[in-house]
Amino acid sequence: MLKVINKHRSIRNFLDKTIPDGVLKEILLAGTRASTTGNMQVYSMIVTTEKDIKNKLWESHFKQDMVNQAPVVITFCADFNRFVKWCRQGNANPGYDNFLSFFTAAIDAFLVAQNLALAAESYDLGICYLGTTTYMAENIIKILQLPRYVVPVTTLVVGYPDESPGLTDRLPLEAVVHYEKYSDYTEDQINRIYKEKESLELTKQLLKENGKETLAQVFTDNRYTKQDNIAFSKSLLKVLEKQGFMNNG
Amino acid sequence: MLKVINKHRSIRNFLDKTIPDGVLKEILLAGTRASTTGNMQVYSMIVTTEKDIKNKLWESHFKQDMVNQAPVVITFCADFNRFVKWCRQGNANPGYDNFLSFFTAAIDAFLVAQNLALAAESYDLGICYLGTTTYMAENIIKILQLPRYVVPVTTLVVGYPDESPGLTDRLPLEAVVHYEKYSDYTEDQINRIYKEKESLELTKQLLKENGKETLAQVFTDNRYTKQDNIAFSKSLLKVLEKQGFMNNG
Repeated sequence: MLKVINKHRSIRNFLDKTIPDGVLKEILLAGTRASTTGNMQVYSMIVTTEKDIKNKLWESHFKQDMVNQAPVVITFCADFNRFVKWCRQGNANPGYDNFLSFFTAAIDAFLVAQNLALAAESYDLGICYLGTTTYMAENIIKILQLPRYVVPVTTLVVGYPDESPGLTDRLPLEAVVHYEKYSDYTEDQINRIYKEKESLELTKQLLKENGKETLAQVFTDNRYTKQDNIAFSKSLLKVLEKQGFMNNG
Repeated sequence: MLKVINKHRSIRNFLDKTIPDGVLKEILLAGTRASTTGNMQVYSMIVTTEKDIKNKLWESHFKQDMVNQAPVVITFCADFNRFVKWCRQGNANPGYDNFLSFFTAAIDAFLVAQNLALAAESYDLGICYLGTTTYMAENIIKILQLPRYVVPVTTLVVGYPDESPGLTDRLPLEAVVHYEKYSDYTEDQINRIYKEKESLELTKQLLKENGKETLAQVFTDNRYTKQDNIAFSKSLLKVLEKQGFMNNG
């Protein structure tokens, strides 16, 4: 178990090899074993393997090749649609058209996704999460025909790896763990925490490629800009509204 | 790996037995191996073991006994504070004070939490997620002294089990999986999907205890009511605003 967790790396290049149905079923079942709020299971997994649908998803996911290359693309959705239908059929009045309910359903989806990711890796499959899912939720909703009360929150591409990358760097444990309460960071601590990351060969390469002085500038000016974040914030909030999750009284 | 995933059950009663430091460190490290957006690691884990702080958390978590009983309580936070400080020290202008950035950081926290949960279970520890974290975020922020750009999104209690419950029921796989695109549920399908759950002994017990006709009514009228959901939606959105995550242009 720890061995699988500790050797995780994201895989972005896949062999042209399908996943046996039995294996796919096992990893989907492993997903469903995750905890969910009140055991409501308010999530759905959309398993896409057809070329033309994958191609449309590829366009939404910023044309990242791995979406077309991977034999299986799984879109994880916060889903209160099924539960709300069940409530109505059971003469019950559902009150799940609000932000808290969306967030609750999103938590379900993420825990399921990480279970599935680890199960896949235990079968020597490779996975990569697509952060673009929330940026492009409106398009993905159209492609996958998601009804009201369903919002895509993350995506996994899954397949047999055609690369064998090394482990990615992590901040030292003391950077992300606080004991008892939160202890805010001093300037010196921040310098110390990020020192190793800043001195990596990969960092030097990124500075050169992007023409920047510091790694932080690569993030703020190139990779995750304020302008993009604001545009995606607006579109994600619009999606929540449109899918019926913003009736907060 | 699959064995650990497939035997998961939430544990709510714990032995009075501390977790060895070495084991705690291993499960925290396993948490950090999860994928995070752009490898930014914009989360924090607050590990609480002190009695008086746990007692304050217990009050926030609807006085659920397991919070005081478990030797370790870990609060997972969406955390852009560390990253923003690093950006500023690196002459970079962070644009992470918006909803998309909060949601991105929350995803990081959930994937880390599930890695940690499974790592803990592989050491024969028991865990339970506390959904009350988002309901009571404002109080938890005060107790754990969380600064701007830090929001608690879930909590795990961790310890040695003092109970051995059976597996919890799950909806059949076809209920939560869609192939290629979403296929919406017919009335018959909803009936079929929930049939097993509705006929469980536990369900009959719940109907009796709550004086309800259907299981759905137990959820809508007693467990997750519209009134609570709206109140918690408002307070969670207020928390996002207060912690600096709602500057969406």
